Amino acid sequence: MPDSITLYTAKICPYAHRVELALAEAKADFKRFDVDLKNKPEWYAPKVNPASKVPAIAYGGPDVPPDQPSPESIKIAESLVLIEFVADLFPSANLLPTDPVLRAKARFFYDAVGNKFNSAYFNYVLKPGGSQEALFKATEDLQALLPPTGFAVGEWSIADAAWTPFIARLFVALENDLGGYTVGEGPKSLQVLLNDTRFARFQQYWKDVSARTSFTSTFDKQLIKEGLSKRFADIQRA
Amino acid sequence: MPDSITLYTAKICPYAHRVELALAEAKADFKRFDVDLKNKPEWYAPKVNPASKVPAIAYGGPDVPPDQPSPESIKIAESLVLIEFVADLFPSANLLPTDPVLRAKARFFYDAVGNKFNSAYFNYVLKPGGSQEALFKATEDLQALLPPTGFAVGEWSIADAAWTPFIARLFVALENDLGGYTVGEGPKSLQVLLNDTRFARFQQYWKDVSARTSFTSTFDKQLIKEGLSKRFADIQRA
Ligand SMILES: [Ca+2]
Repeated sequence: MPDSITLYTAKICPYAHRVELALAEAKADFKRFDVDLKNKPEWYAPKVNPASKVPAIAYGGPDVPPDQPSPESIKIAESLVLIEFVADLFPSANLLPTDPVLRAKARFFYDAVGNKFNSAYFNYVLKPGGSQEALFKATEDLQALLPPTGFAVGEWSIADAAWTPFIARLFVALENDLGGYTVGEGPKSLQVLLNDTRFARFQQYWKDVSARTSFTSTFDKQLIKEGLSKRFADIQRA
Repeated sequence: MPDSITLYTAKICPYAHRVELALAEAKADFKRFDVDLKNKPEWYAPKVNPASKVPAIAYGGPDVPPDQPSPESIKIAESLVLIEFVADLFPSANLLPTDPVLRAKARFFYDAVGNKFNSAYFNYVLKPGGSQEALFKATEDLQALLPPTGFAVGEWSIADAAWTPFIARLFVALENDLGGYTVGEGPKSLQVLLNDTRFARFQQYWKDVSARTSFTSTFDKQLIKEGLSKRFADIQRA
């Protein structure tokens, strides 16, 4: 039985969403504190995460309100560290397979999400003239790592927690034409990703992963749309 | 009892060295193939690692010579994925603690090596006018994560495998004044790192980690010196 968990998070943040997904899949009992990323509480960096980022977890220690974190709890940061931590805390939830090869494949997968997909996503959406084809290529590279059916390594795992939040936010951005690309290009890119046979395996993957309760219970599309609209308001368009 | 392991590696490469350290600590039986990084065998990318980098491991499959890799073995790449894989394959070697909090601290540590120390090292050594103080600051940041005695999380772990190869190469570069900094600055920076009380905990750590058989049996200082001399020959000096 793990100690108490307090998650410091923010609905807009895909990195924090990774940890929310892992905790939901583990059916973990935890407190949450939503950090206003534009106006962080002054206690947050000194008492929770010196890097002043979400997500972070305060683990164990006395039962305190999240906005009064105890020096006695252990503070852990970094989304990939945290999803591994949740998997370790709840072994019976099988958030990572026990087979060393499948564990390696899961870790290679989340590494590829970080190194390939996320950079292509940020580059396409945040920069004027970002490359649609680079985004498509990165999606295809990740798709190529998927087994014929199921999730990144078969059963759902933290590898899927690592990717899902970024796909979800990409889709909201494209659907609403939010980004640095030419006006009208977002919905067109989305149609390709959702319908072109080039991405058939990815489409099935997205259906499977987005149908899980862990996703539907942690993703608020309207809130993300509003958040991205604000965040992307100042991007120069191509 | 794990299946057969073939490690594709290169003595010069700090990422490959991470895996050599983990395998040495696990006392693992494995075949090695030294990849000539300047003249990679043409079978390496298609048959072992599409990214064409070391380290990589071929795991299992029939008993074949390393230069004739079997399609039946499983190929795994990325140094951090591989050191986790070695830890998972040899649980009794305790390359990672079993406690979830210590595991999280180990992973946070190797993440900090990648995000803070390595970038400061490459920036200082490879770029003309790289910042000595940024290197010192990164060293201090890592040092601050160390417990009062012992290794990154107490007992030796893969967190130490992640850092050691970079410290070792930094020291060889500085000792031999190889890098983009002002002529003569390398040995001076080394003296600060090795003697200034600012880095007292780091100095003890380096003594401890470099005294281990896993390090002395995998590190060839002369070879690294020659390798770095060639690699750094074209760097513009400040
Ligand atoms: Ca990384």
